[in-house]
Amino acid sequence: MNLSEDALKRGFKKDRYAELSNIELLTAGPGRATAKMSLHPHHLNALGTVHGGAIFTLADFTFAVACNSHGTLAVALDVSIVFMKAAITGTLWATAQEQSKNFKVGLYLVEIKDDASDLVAQFQGLAYRKKDKLPL
Amino acid sequence: MNLSEDALKRGFKKDRYAELSNIELLTAGPGRATAKMSLHPHHLNALGTVHGGAIFTLADFTFAVACNSHGTLAVALDVSIVFMKAAITGTLWATAQEQSKNFKVGLYLVEIKDDASDLVAQFQGLAYRKKDKLPL
Amino acid sequence: MNLSEDALKRGFKKDRYAELSNIELLTAGPGRATAKMSLHPHHLNALGTVHGGAIFTLADFTFAVACNSHGTLAVALDVSIVFMKAAITGTLWATAQEQSKNFKVGLYLVEIKDDASDLVAQFQGLAYRKKDKLPL
Amino acid sequence: MNLSEDALKRGFKKDRYAELSNIELLTAGPGRATAKMSLHPHHLNALGTVHGGAIFTLADFTFAVACNSHGTLAVALDVSIVFMKAAITGTLWATAQEQSKNFKVGLYLVEIKDDASDLVAQFQGLAYRKKDKLPL
Repeated sequence: MNLSEDALKRGFKKDRYAELSNIELLTAGPGRATAKMSLHPHHLNALGTVHGGAIFTLADFTFAVACNSHGTLAVALDVSIVFMKAAITGTLWATAQEQSKNFKVGLYLVEIKDDASDLVAQFQGLAYRKKDKLPL
Repeated sequence: MNLSEDALKRGFKKDRYAELSNIELLTAGPGRATAKMSLHPHHLNALGTVHGGAIFTLADFTFAVACNSHGTLAVALDVSIVFMKAAITGTLWATAQEQSKNFKVGLYLVEIKDDASDLVAQFQGLAYRKKDKLPL
Repeated sequence: MNLSEDALKRGFKKDRYAELSNIELLTAGPGRATAKMSLHPHHLNALGTVHGGAIFTLADFTFAVACNSHGTLAVALDVSIVFMKAAITGTLWATAQEQSKNFKVGLYLVEIKDDASDLVAQFQGLAYRKKDKLPL
Repeated sequence: MNLSEDALKRGFKKDRYAELSNIELLTAGPGRATAKMSLHPHHLNALGTVHGGAIFTLADFTFAVACNSHGTLAVALDVSIVFMKAAITGTLWATAQEQSKNFKVGLYLVEIKDDASDLVAQFQGLAYRKKDKLPL
């Protein structure tokens, strides 16, 4: 059974690494979610741009909300991420959308954009869908 | 010109997001690097396992050292990561190894293992190789 | 300069492996293309379903048209493909759409659907954009 | 139960698309396989180089043998392929090796090399492992 936006927001408040990374869930619904990450110097890599790991974390968090929105546990299996543009300051915005699902897996696309609405990264995530009820 | 292990360690000390994530560079050389991440509750996701973003960040950091070890700037273009086993506590260990490179791109494989030497994730990273000298 | 649909169709008629695989280009324009593959027993693998290689070939062909539509040479660099549903008979339909491009790479998404409009595979393709005029 | 090399060779003789593509299985064993593809003009794309689809098919075939070698049915779920060097004539050689497996998935790496032993492509394939006995 699909979870309500409130239940998803409450459940994903427990994500400690997302919290460490300044990530905030904005909206959530069946097969979809949006989130933002306010950039801070602690997001930077040695070259002074936002770390690929921080961008991935924002995308992965949004993906996790979307693929767990149906109320049964789903875990990331395989992800492909393409980096199109570097980021340094401002805010990054993530939008996750379910592309397709079957009894065993779900496929999601997550776009990360900057304040200029330019595509920073595109994330294609495959989740394994367990039978268990989401323990959130 | 390949950078020395000392120069790479000094340069990558500036990686703020790796520092935030408890990541420590262990060894570095031409086309290769190893690093570790001591797990802490702030690495966990809402389900209580280590966040995919934290695992990716460890792999991506190790990849960045390996692909920048030749002294010219290289940036992540496209990464595929497969998650094989969940982690909760202990330490995660990353090993990055160059598979091939040409004038424009370099290909790297990063393995993430846990304390039992089980494969937690495998990361295949493609870097775009610029002509610029590494600004570290 | 973007090529016309006629020029793209004429140029891609020379694709021998697409011809061997029964692939037909349907439409083409700036950053986009559609194609179909009429299934035949020679597309099957040892298990009696359409070979992942045939599905990839259909997607890759459509991607090649879309990423070369701007008139300069583009070559596949890295592709991620997720298989969602098996196919056996009928026709497979491919739609490629540019997601983003910059001076060095272009990113494309290709959907492969069956006659029931179910998603058979999703293909995320990254092309390296050369400066050369397309030799077609 | 692992299948013998003879049983795998006999079973995969039924792969029609591999046959169409001139692919020959060379060796096979638990979690591993090697194959070759003798290049012919029908493997070429519109630009006169070997089609990415043909290279993928060779890798995917070798992966299929390796992931089905344990005697239970395994199907491709998600693949990432990186293209490092173009090919035109001669023979392409594929080597698939299991990286890790658990109850639900198996992870394989396939290298495609040309006659000069240069890496043409690297393929990271994730297979879903069913409970069914291999119907070969």
